Amino acid sequence: MKWYTEYWTNHVKFSIRIKKHIYTKETRFQKLDFYDSYEFGRFFALDGYMMANEKDEFIYHEMMVHLPMNANPDIRNVLVIGGGDGGSVRELTRYPFLACIDLVEIDEEVVRACQEFLPLTAHKLTDPKVNLIFADGAEFVSETKKVYDLIIVDSTDPIGPGEGLFTPRFYRNCYRILSGDGILVNQHESPYFDDTRKDMKQIHKKLKSTFPIATVYQAFIPTYPSGHWLFGFASKSLSPEFRGDEDLLSRFKLRYYNKAVHIASLALPNYVEEELR
Amino acid sequence: MKWYTEYWTNHVKFSIRIKKHIYTKETRFQKLDFYDSYEFGRFFALDGYMMANEKDEFIYHEMMVHLPMNANPDIRNVLVIGGGDGGSVRELTRYPFLACIDLVEIDEEVVRACQEFLPLTAHKLTDPKVNLIFADGAEFVSETKKVYDLIIVDSTDPIGPGEGLFTPRFYRNCYRILSGDGILVNQHESPYFDDTRKDMKQIHKKLKSTFPIATVYQAFIPTYPSGHWLFGFASKSLSPEFRGDEDLLSRFKLRYYNKAVHIASLALPNYVEEELR
Repeated sequence: MKWYTEYWTNHVKFSIRIKKHIYTKETRFQKLDFYDSYEFGRFFALDGYMMANEKDEFIYHEMMVHLPMNANPDIRNVLVIGGGDGGSVRELTRYPFLACIDLVEIDEEVVRACQEFLPLTAHKLTDPKVNLIFADGAEFVSETKKVYDLIIVDSTDPIGPGEGLFTPRFYRNCYRILSGDGILVNQHESPYFDDTRKDMKQIHKKLKSTFPIATVYQAFIPTYPSGHWLFGFASKSLSPEFRGDEDLLSRFKLRYYNKAVHIASLALPNYVEEELR
Repeated sequence: MKWYTEYWTNHVKFSIRIKKHIYTKETRFQKLDFYDSYEFGRFFALDGYMMANEKDEFIYHEMMVHLPMNANPDIRNVLVIGGGDGGSVRELTRYPFLACIDLVEIDEEVVRACQEFLPLTAHKLTDPKVNLIFADGAEFVSETKKVYDLIIVDSTDPIGPGEGLFTPRFYRNCYRILSGDGILVNQHESPYFDDTRKDMKQIHKKLKSTFPIATVYQAFIPTYPSGHWLFGFASKSLSPEFRGDEDLLSRFKLRYYNKAVHIASLALPNYVEEELR
């Protein structure tokens, strides 16, 4: 019996019993591994950190996508940076009124491996509205002439290939290519352990210095360190309040997100509010 | 370097690096252990499950106490069942208008050891309003003639010494000794892993068949399995909405609970709502 172990801090580890290590590859950018597990089904890891698993990926992807989509029902053009597993794209394709979804992923091998081993998240990457662009997200936003209504930064942690997606320059470029009601959301680490809390504070500070509106929202994601995970919400003009269509949402048959969860996800515990101040 | 390990399921384990195992005792009821750890400070475990640690006990205890206290500002007499670490009592003693706090704990050794090794939670057990009663909570509620406005069932899981605190008979007796606006809250397990989800459904079913109002609320508690933990809220007449005094609350300088968190804690993800239906 084998265990896959993640160190959440130097002093805390989280271990998952593995059925089989099904794929491993050193890509140009990172180490990519796929496993079959008893508790979480299939999952993949980048540089030793679990990114998505079949049991709870829906929580992360639903919260990443449906909160901004329901803060501004006029979103038509979306840019996803990172997110090579396709989970965010899958959630976006539920909205019939979207015009285009550009996915900019630095590592094509992540996309191809997820298409082979994790169809649960990747199966909408071939949707006609989706354009796959294999490029560095930081370079892409500095060069593109396109305007987006929503940018989803579905990245790894601020080390390794994801680092460039956490710089002030990156955020300024995102601001530049967003429409007037434009929204940026990103994965924003966790308030609980020291290391991720430092990252959280840094990210928030940078977003706040770029966007007039910058806050965080949260979800219960048991397989990310501490299970208390944050998303950043930044925009030029719109608050994160719910402005969605509940009838449309009910047809999606989501498993986590709903209007009440949207509103609740913005209510921060005192200790988190204080750290962000 | 030693690790304390908890199996969250047969296939998932959570491990904490230990500085020192400072106390161990087989009491009449259970195995009691105290440890010093790097990440969570001091903590204690009953029968191998962590109950409270210095890093995040405030989340559990604040949510256990302040939600019901702020759903009914007329609460004067409180019964705590279990909760031998004193954390729930500590939060209750913040309210100057409480008349009496009866703590019924089956295992005196838990109280005495927490007073020695975990003063952070136990230091208000000597408050003049607090009566310590070392007895079986299930027997106590079947015999007492007293009437309470709030019953807090701060128990272990529904196995071992805590088992009697999850029966229909126990809930019926609680109903009997509650005042007209009376509220019961209890630790209600987690929706995420199979075993705790089964417990969650059982507890909810029993509470619903006893009380006209029965729902759950949730908090981010990273050291409990999955980090997504539920509390039960049951009452004769009052909904769990916020009716508290925000000025009083701000003087408490709480680290987790606030009015927005109160309201948000009641917003359940779709998959949790479906399991409870």
